[in-house]
Amino acid sequence: MEYYSEKISKLISELGTLPGIGAKSAQRLAFFLLDCPQEKVERLIGSSKDAKENVKYCSRCFCLTDREICPICSNKNRDEKIIMVVENTKDMAAYERIGKFNGLYHVLNGVISPMMGIGPQDIKIKELILRLQKEPVEEVVIATNSSVEGEATAMYISKLLKPAGIKVSRIANGIPVGGDLEYVDEITLLRALEGRVIL
Amino acid sequence: MEYYSEKISKLISELGTLPGIGAKSAQRLAFFLLDCPQEKVERLIGSSKDAKENVKYCSRCFCLTDREICPICSNKNRDEKIIMVVENTKDMAAYERIGKFNGLYHVLNGVISPMMGIGPQDIKIKELILRLQKEPVEEVVIATNSSVEGEATAMYISKLLKPAGIKVSRIANGIPVGGDLEYVDEITLLRALEGRVIL
Repeated sequence: MEYYSEKISKLISELGTLPGIGAKSAQRLAFFLLDCPQEKVERLIGSSKDAKENVKYCSRCFCLTDREICPICSNKNRDEKIIMVVENTKDMAAYERIGKFNGLYHVLNGVISPMMGIGPQDIKIKELILRLQKEPVEEVVIATNSSVEGEATAMYISKLLKPAGIKVSRIANGIPVGGDLEYVDEITLLRALEGRVIL
Repeated sequence: MEYYSEKISKLISELGTLPGIGAKSAQRLAFFLLDCPQEKVERLIGSSKDAKENVKYCSRCFCLTDREICPICSNKNRDEKIIMVVENTKDMAAYERIGKFNGLYHVLNGVISPMMGIGPQDIKIKELILRLQKEPVEEVVIATNSSVEGEATAMYISKLLKPAGIKVSRIANGIPVGGDLEYVDEITLLRALEGRVIL
């Protein structure tokens, strides 16, 4: 049986397809949209359309941006000699937020995942190689996630770049700052031990 | 400093104004929308617009619907002698889902809340009184929430209707089914005791 009229049900089911939005949240969002002023809904729709139509990949680092070359790539003060390889634009933003990395980025827009049928040719690895041939890069920091796919991708890129004589590094695994050893998994504990730093 | 280009930031901040969507979820939703096929975004926008334009209050029970009279009010098999008063359309749907209530509803679309400046005239109480004068109602079940505002609204309606000789009832307070007494608050425990049922 239907509890809501058709147009409301349709809106709820559309909202329910968004990531992290379950049945209850979808219902809550739908009624929020129905209740709120018309201009607010139009603003939301407008910014979705605007972003969808105008956002594309930066032609240098492949992050999502609304310009041809993103603000980071076109910033002359950034150090061109070091490139951080990340999985997606969100991860790039995470590092930008701390404001301590002054190099450039390269956004893969995915990870190698045979399970999902994603091979090296499906992500921006070829484009990374091309950049390395044109740009004066000395070090590539691989900052893919610490997942199986992220590790495999890091390994793949590292094997590809090392013969070319480029320094390849990987961000460290270890205990998160403020983290409690008691709640940290065994592999992380092991990596933290292996990666210990002399004081 | 901005981590994303302007159009992405704008979309994230618009999404962040939705209920239950924090900064991280807004970011996740924005990138989902940017990544997903154009037609999916259009479907979402379309159903939002369609619902926003066509959904209005049922002229009898004031639930949100896309018809003049909602399917429940226009169903001849429902018992017109009993009306359940609920705060909003979602609460109506919660009772419809169990499928055991065969009467009609009256949706207040709010609760009396002096703190928020909402008085009896701001919710559909006058409309309830008018319905009771026209329809053959014998019992009004008040199913507003068990919050301070919900209780106050229930009390207000009850005092208004009783002199007219209409039977007014209130849904029971008590231990939720499957609930553990240990985790139930004191007022609920007290209400459960007061409302005990002879076996």
